[in-house]
This record gives sequence, structure tokens and C-alpha cells, in this order.
Amino acid sequence: MKKFAVILAGCGVYDGAEIHEATLSMWAIMKQGATYEVFAPGKPQMHVVNHLTGEEMPESRNVLVESARIARGKIYPLSTYDPSGFDALLLPGGFGVAKNLCNFALKGAEMSVDPEVEKALRSTAAAGKPIGALCISPVLLSKVFGDVRITVGQDPSSVEAVEKMGSRHVRTTHGDVVMDERHKLFTTPCYMLDANIVQIGEGAENIVKAILDSLH
Amino acid sequence: MKKFAVILAGCGVYDGAEIHEATLSMWAIMKQGATYEVFAPGKPQMHVVNHLTGEEMPESRNVLVESARIARGKIYPLSTYDPSGFDALLLPGGFGVAKNLCNFALKGAEMSVDPEVEKALRSTAAAGKPIGALCISPVLLSKVFGDVRITVGQDPSSVEAVEKMGSRHVRTTHGDVVMDERHKLFTTPCYMLDANIVQIGEGAENIVKAILDSLH
Repeated sequence: MKKFAVILAGCGVYDGAEIHEATLSMWAIMKQGATYEVFAPGKPQMHVVNHLTGEEMPESRNVLVESARIARGKIYPLSTYDPSGFDALLLPGGFGVAKNLCNFALKGAEMSVDPEVEKALRSTAAAGKPIGALCISPVLLSKVFGDVRITVGQDPSSVEAVEKMGSRHVRTTHGDVVMDERHKLFTTPCYMLDANIVQIGEGAENIVKAILDSLH
Repeated sequence: MKKFAVILAGCGVYDGAEIHEATLSMWAIMKQGATYEVFAPGKPQMHVVNHLTGEEMPESRNVLVESARIARGKIYPLSTYDPSGFDALLLPGGFGVAKNLCNFALKGAEMSVDPEVEKALRSTAAAGKPIGALCISPVLLSKVFGDVRITVGQDPSSVEAVEKMGSRHVRTTHGDVVMDERHKLFTTPCYMLDANIVQIGEGAENIVKAILDSLH
């Protein structure tokens, strides 16, 4: 049975992992006969956003502790991730990716990547294993691997940023999966487009299928 | 297009709405050609649980504000719910149901129901519209409507509690949906069983399908 590692960035679209993308990624993995374990970095979120008002809240939450809500408690610190135990790595999106796994939300193309996240990405690639990234997560691949073929959908400023980081952007719509064969990278836009939850499910199913197909 | 109202109880299995059940309910509604709006009561959660350790955290969170994470900000106070705008009402599970929508987690069969939740249930039933409840949510139907035919899966103490509240319990397994024709109630066990996320998706699809079929 093929096994995915899934990296979460908190719990909630505006300051953490996008919940529909995370849930439907785990669902898509298991639906296609594979299994998964969930990881997140054990560090404070960049901030906490009230998802009703969009305003910042004067409190502090931990990325690992909040990600555990999506994982129902079954989650591990990203520092313990070892690609030898997995067949593939998958990163759902959400602003938490751009705020907690890197600082793309603040710095754009000048961003830096969380050291644990960078190590996870580099060690997975070095082991010759595929990496999938949904929504805004492909910016991580762009920063770490540079000249890669990816998609972040159609948003002009995000497209400009990944091109500035040396990547070749492919414009996509709902459910499309872009593959970089050389680096074994798979990307799909999900909520980088104005999508509904069924389209998110299709994106998750398609990227997981493409990754599983590449393993045969 | 048929329209569901979905009531959430926070964001996270141990103190709020169960995230997989909530997400896959919304997905199942839209997948079957219907649409939804999301509601939650604007009040403090009973408590906040660290989902990594299972321990209570010394902070306060609001049910509506946290539910907004699952709804991506598109959510309304339960006080504004009016069944005339909807074809059916759906309640995903999670301990938040037993802690924030009622106090079943503390009181068992002696529980009381949040007044806004009770009003939503009674007004929907009075309008002759169906109500679906996943996981532990059927205890609400048991308390409010009494002599109803429902399932909470197989857990002995939960079964005993709903029987004590005057309901007829049907023992079920993954994906089963129990219908009470007289009250137009639909229930399915989901994570009241030791289920995986694909089985949660099947439970959500089946209960939404049964409700939609009943509308034809």
C-alpha cells in the first residue's frame, strides 16, 4: 500500500491549512487505496485570523496543535519526517502555507522557507520521490527548486512571483494537474481559482491519481 | 436547486464540529446538485481542547467564529436561521455537538439543548422539512422529538441514553442511514464508529442522497 506524508500549516484558510483541501486530500488518498500520515511544524502561527470578520485576533496558536484538529489528533512534528517511510509527499494549501511554512504572504518572490519544510522537500526530492502541492503551496517548490514547471492557477501576482523565482508557470483551470517530470513535482490550483468544494475534491483526486500513476 | 442549511458546532472533533464530517457533508450536498448555507450559534465554546494532547487549554473561543474556519468565512449566526429559505437541515457531528449545541457530554440523557438549536430543529420539523444528523448529532433529535427512530451507531452508553430519552435505536454500521418517516429524520453513524475518512464520505453521501430522494 502506497503511503503519503501530508504537511499541514494550521487549521483554517486565512491563517492555516485550507480545511477543504486538507480533508479532501486525505479522502482522495484513502479513496484510491493508499494511506497517509500527517505532519506539521511545531511553532507559533504567524498570526490568528477571525474567519468571521477577517480581522487579526490578539492571541497565539501553534501550527502543529491547530493542524491536529484536521488530523483528529493523529499527527507528528514535521521535524520527525523521514522520506524513507513514505512514497510521496503532499501539501494542501491555505494562507497558512504562505504565512507559516514560508513568508510568501509578506515577501512574495523574496520569500524564505521554514527550515523544516525546506528539509522535508529537499530530502523527498533527493530520495527520488514525488511531491504534490495544491493551491498556493507550489510557491514552496518554486523557491526551493527554482527552475520547475508548476501552476498556481491564474492569479497574476502569484504567477509573476513564481516566474521571478525562476519557475515556468502553466496557466490552469479547475482540476488540472501540472507535472514536472524531472523533479517529480505535481501541482493543481484548487482555491487559487474561484472554486467550489466539488472542484476542490476533483483537484485532490486528480493530483493524488497523477502521483500514484507515477509510482507504477 | 435544493438548498440545505448546515449547522456547525465549532472546528475540531474534540471541542467543535468534526472537520471531516462537516467538509464531506458540504461536498456531498454540492456533488449531488444541491447547495448549502452554513450556520452556527454565536456563543463561547464549552471549552477548548488541545487536539495534539487531548488536554483542555486555558482560553476561550467562539462557536460561530471557529465554525467560520470550516465555512471559509461564509457563515451566519444560527439566530438568523429561517427554515422557509431551505429544503432541509443537516447537522454534522463532533464533540462540539455534545458540548456546544447541547450538554450531552456532561449530562447524558438528562441533557438540555441550546435554545437556538432547539428552535431551528422545531421550526424545520414544523415546516414539514427533513432533518439529517450525523455521528452524535442524533441525540439532539432524541431530546427534542422524543419518540423517534434514529441511530448513533453501536456505542452502548450512547444507545442507552437515546433509549432513555424515549427514542427507538437502530444499530448500524458504516454508511447506513436510518429514516424516521413520521418526523422526516435521517441519521447515520460516521465517527460514532471506528471509521476511516472514506467511510465518512460514504455516510455523508448516503444521508444527503436519502434526504434529497425524500424531497422528490
